[in-house]
Amino acid sequence: MGSGTNPGRDGALALKATIEYDGTDFFGFQVQASERTVQGEVERALEALTAGPVRVIGAGRTDRGVHAQGQVIGFRARWSHSVVDLQRALNAVLPGDVAVLALDVAPEDFHPRYSALSRRYRYTILNRPWRSALIRRTCWHVERELDVERMNQASQALIGSQDFGTFGRPPGGRDKTSVREVLDARWKEQGALLTFEIEANAFLYRMVRSIVGTLTQVGWGQISVDDFRAMLEARDHSLIRRVAPAQGLCLMQVNYAAREGVLQ
Amino acid sequence: MGSGTNPGRDGALALKATIEYDGTDFFGFQVQASERTVQGEVERALEALTAGPVRVIGAGRTDRGVHAQGQVIGFRARWSHSVVDLQRALNAVLPGDVAVLALDVAPEDFHPRYSALSRRYRYTILNRPWRSALIRRTCWHVERELDVERMNQASQALIGSQDFGTFGRPPGGRDKTSVREVLDARWKEQGALLTFEIEANAFLYRMVRSIVGTLTQVGWGQISVDDFRAMLEARDHSLIRRVAPAQGLCLMQVNYAAREGVLQ
Repeated sequence: MGSGTNPGRDGALALKATIEYDGTDFFGFQVQASERTVQGEVERALEALTAGPVRVIGAGRTDRGVHAQGQVIGFRARWSHSVVDLQRALNAVLPGDVAVLALDVAPEDFHPRYSALSRRYRYTILNRPWRSALIRRTCWHVERELDVERMNQASQALIGSQDFGTFGRPPGGRDKTSVREVLDARWKEQGALLTFEIEANAFLYRMVRSIVGTLTQVGWGQISVDDFRAMLEARDHSLIRRVAPAQGLCLMQVNYAAREGVLQ
Repeated sequence: MGSGTNPGRDGALALKATIEYDGTDFFGFQVQASERTVQGEVERALEALTAGPVRVIGAGRTDRGVHAQGQVIGFRARWSHSVVDLQRALNAVLPGDVAVLALDVAPEDFHPRYSALSRRYRYTILNRPWRSALIRRTCWHVERELDVERMNQASQALIGSQDFGTFGRPPGGRDKTSVREVLDARWKEQGALLTFEIEANAFLYRMVRSIVGTLTQVGWGQISVDDFRAMLEARDHSLIRRVAPAQGLCLMQVNYAAREGVLQ
């Protein structure tokens, strides 16, 4: 056992990993019977390296085609070497489209989803008449010019704790409300690349993609900033006309209270 | 015929295009009998859209796995609509890993290779212990820490007109000398991303990859800056121990004299 590790009663360590993946060739994060998923690949790699079955829990269940630069996962595993060695071994065993960026011992009660305080996503639009070959897997190509200033004005309506029922449905499980607290939501423009970063305590199913799709309608002048605000207040999911495609979306970061982070 | 176009005696237009491609799934730029190449895909798309066979010439014959953000190609084609329409049609017909960023009518005597004044390449290294999933197709992952300052010192020896025989062989064709003029060569560091940009009038076969491979030996202290200079002066290709892999290399830009650019 490496120094500073803290095996539980079952002799397994509670571990927290930050992972990056290219979602293009995955059927989403969560395990499915017969499809290739991120969770499935990570569990398989862990089972190949450690004794016995491993169950991986992710902070966010990203959809098919969605990427991550900062997905956080938790699992318990038996490992008699250092944590750095396990990270190195995982990166050697995992396929090229998943990488382990960080691995630490976690508190025994760490749960990547329930312990998370907030999540940050980025959505990338390439806004120009011609498409790109090199970044085609990680952006949405929108030919028609978008008014980013109007989109940013509308985005301000998202800030705060409110019912986001218009933009998504709550996932199954503990939480049945569609109230979420959005902490930050803004567009940045770098040449033809428009990036939308949004941080919230948690997100509804397809919430970011529904927001981005609707904001492009604002950017084209099809919907006014006031209309956007009224849509949000209507809490009516049937109002959504445009859902942005998966490949532009990336889970950037999951935030925890200091005590949930690395075990010192 | 669109306004401003200038068909030659054969009724075909001389055209100049800037193209981007993800080299991962190509066997290089240049047509090969049975392999998928960039030239082959572009010729096929042009032949599908215009009447008759089309021969595409590229400014640089990038190797298998090498990318381009600014490859320039020239060709003659019969086209009775506007040039913008041809660009749009090409982007609709070409596979996702090739895109046409610009298309213009060229002077009748335009030759993408012989008319070019200089080419600029970028090489990207990810220098950290753990690999990346999202940028794995466009960088070389180097685990061991590199001293970028030393690499930049050594790079200064490359500037100027000299015999680069140590770093590559001249391609077949007109030019049998290995003298080239390097106009710029420098490393930039952005967190774990190290990018090397090099501009020269022309390059030898595998020259950038041989330079980058040798510079990593400088960055690890295996070769001193003086040793690097001595290697360059030796004009001996057998001295090369490390050639950086193709996926980190990208043809960024090809420069022409003003009159060779867009026909006004």
